[in-house]
Amino acid sequence: MKILITGGGGFVGARLARTLLARGQLNGRSIRTLVLADQIAPPADLLADARVQGRTGTLLAQCDDLHHEPFDGVFHLASAVSGECELDFDLGMRSNIDSTRALLDALRASGQASGVPARLVFSSSVAVFGPDASVPLAARVADDTLPAPQTSYGVQKLVCEHLVADYTRKAYIDGRAARLMTVTVRPGKPNGAASSFFSGIIREPLAGVLSVCPVDDQVSHPMSSPARAVEGLIAVFEASREAFGGRLALNLPALNVRVCDMLDALEEVAGPKVRALVRFERDARIAGIVANWPAGASAQRAKHLGLAPDGSFTDIIRQYIADCRQRPDAAQTLAGLAG
Amino acid sequence: MKILITGGGGFVGARLARTLLARGQLNGRSIRTLVLADQIAPPADLLADARVQGRTGTLLAQCDDLHHEPFDGVFHLASAVSGECELDFDLGMRSNIDSTRALLDALRASGQASGVPARLVFSSSVAVFGPDASVPLAARVADDTLPAPQTSYGVQKLVCEHLVADYTRKAYIDGRAARLMTVTVRPGKPNGAASSFFSGIIREPLAGVLSVCPVDDQVSHPMSSPARAVEGLIAVFEASREAFGGRLALNLPALNVRVCDMLDALEEVAGPKVRALVRFERDARIAGIVANWPAGASAQRAKHLGLAPDGSFTDIIRQYIADCRQRPDAAQTLAGLAG
Repeated sequence: MKILITGGGGFVGARLARTLLARGQLNGRSIRTLVLADQIAPPADLLADARVQGRTGTLLAQCDDLHHEPFDGVFHLASAVSGECELDFDLGMRSNIDSTRALLDALRASGQASGVPARLVFSSSVAVFGPDASVPLAARVADDTLPAPQTSYGVQKLVCEHLVADYTRKAYIDGRAARLMTVTVRPGKPNGAASSFFSGIIREPLAGVLSVCPVDDQVSHPMSSPARAVEGLIAVFEASREAFGGRLALNLPALNVRVCDMLDALEEVAGPKVRALVRFERDARIAGIVANWPAGASAQRAKHLGLAPDGSFTDIIRQYIADCRQRPDAAQTLAGLAG
Repeated sequence: MKILITGGGGFVGARLARTLLARGQLNGRSIRTLVLADQIAPPADLLADARVQGRTGTLLAQCDDLHHEPFDGVFHLASAVSGECELDFDLGMRSNIDSTRALLDALRASGQASGVPARLVFSSSVAVFGPDASVPLAARVADDTLPAPQTSYGVQKLVCEHLVADYTRKAYIDGRAARLMTVTVRPGKPNGAASSFFSGIIREPLAGVLSVCPVDDQVSHPMSSPARAVEGLIAVFEASREAFGGRLALNLPALNVRVCDMLDALEEVAGPKVRALVRFERDARIAGIVANWPAGASAQRAKHLGLAPDGSFTDIIRQYIADCRQRPDAAQTLAGLAG
């Protein structure tokens, strides 16, 4: 079968690609071609696989060609991220809504030509949830909690959830939307995202570097390891329509943890000296943003698909450490552990 | 002030225009110009008013010019209707989503030039609600019931609700979305809409014509008279942001009535002979569609704005009769009453 991953050069997309290549099959059919479309080139290890085609450029520009290229399966992960969408509204509308529509229309055209609607998994986000003056934020957002996005990114994800549902109802595609929780621990540098610290307070200390936590240690948030996120996307792809259980998006499993739980786990895995590298310095702006995020999530429909959250935050940290050890910069990223 | 009504030539739009012209003011400011944009020309009585400008053409084509034309207020009612959107998916996407985005972008541009974001009321619809395998349909849909649209029209309305909310959060406009209930009694001929009979079983007997009811008499539905719908749109426009109470859409008030209640009201107003002109002939296709519609709605936020549903269905029928009496074809439309 021929699979497309949009955003296939990104953190989750590249991991999904590696997982699919290692499995060799999806839904019982062997994967012959894996197209990774992204604005950046996919990592070299992926391009080295004979089954992989990298395509570099904006998704919007690539969609014209996709009208005549049937895919058996699509994972649509490409997205401008939350911070970008707040800074540049038009970029977000174009990258997230226009690109998704162009992709859906391309799949509709190629599916109508081939007679088989492409199966598509759309990665939505827990960012569809937020409080509104008209409705308080649930302590734990569920599959059927009323979305009230607080950001343009969240609105755009929610809009696409409903477009995917309607293209599916029309049988143009066989689409499913799954909401990713905050995926952590992300490798790399801190970025401007308000959620950056959720990875930073683990990643930096493990590298022997001081990290500042801008919120108090009782702040709670729904998290997922990258491996669990990828597992969820694949399970949603492989689910029958009946098992998926509706047109609407589902939540992927979340480990609901407080900052203090995260730091306890860090100490358990890496010792008190590493934990001591996290300093608390409240940032009112970030704390204000985070206060509008769900403190937790449930994932009843995902549970019916056999999906479970990470067992503990120590599992998530150990997964990150294992990932780092496979990379050339392991010594640097895990410098804190050496001490 | 200068007001724009998109869909200003339609049933609700023209009535809104007449009401605004009769009031002469909105939110305490006198109405100097009322632009009615529609694919069809507005009724002659409206064009005869010196304050009215009719503009004929698709909204999408008209939006380019609106970038440089500031409006103090906009009622965005223009829409392809439910049946059309199911038959022609692209028409619905273009007429409902693309046109709304073009309008919002035009208002954003003119508002940024003038320094004052235009106030906008978007007419959404009870069609955003429906059942899904993942969530049963509430017996009475509330402001904060999870929307699960069953139709492309409903999806498109829901998408626009969230775009209006986000353009408002960004202060590009001062927007509010209000969900209209099924507006009845509509004048004119039966049309292909599945909801057509809700008007037909009143309108046709009053004209002395036989009408077929395709569902059983226990079917219940949230209704509104045209006058109450217009009153709701104006109240939502005039509400302060605090009184509107959130970013998300609200339900306008509904009179929740069963078909048998409607016919009892018809008999009360027009006598048993007129009622006897309604014959029951179940249509499985229409009954199936209607079974997926909400049986009722509540409107808590609208109530806080001082809005109430019609007092009874006899009130709704009497409003229709009074409207007919002002029209040149009164004798024909009310031929059943004469007997």
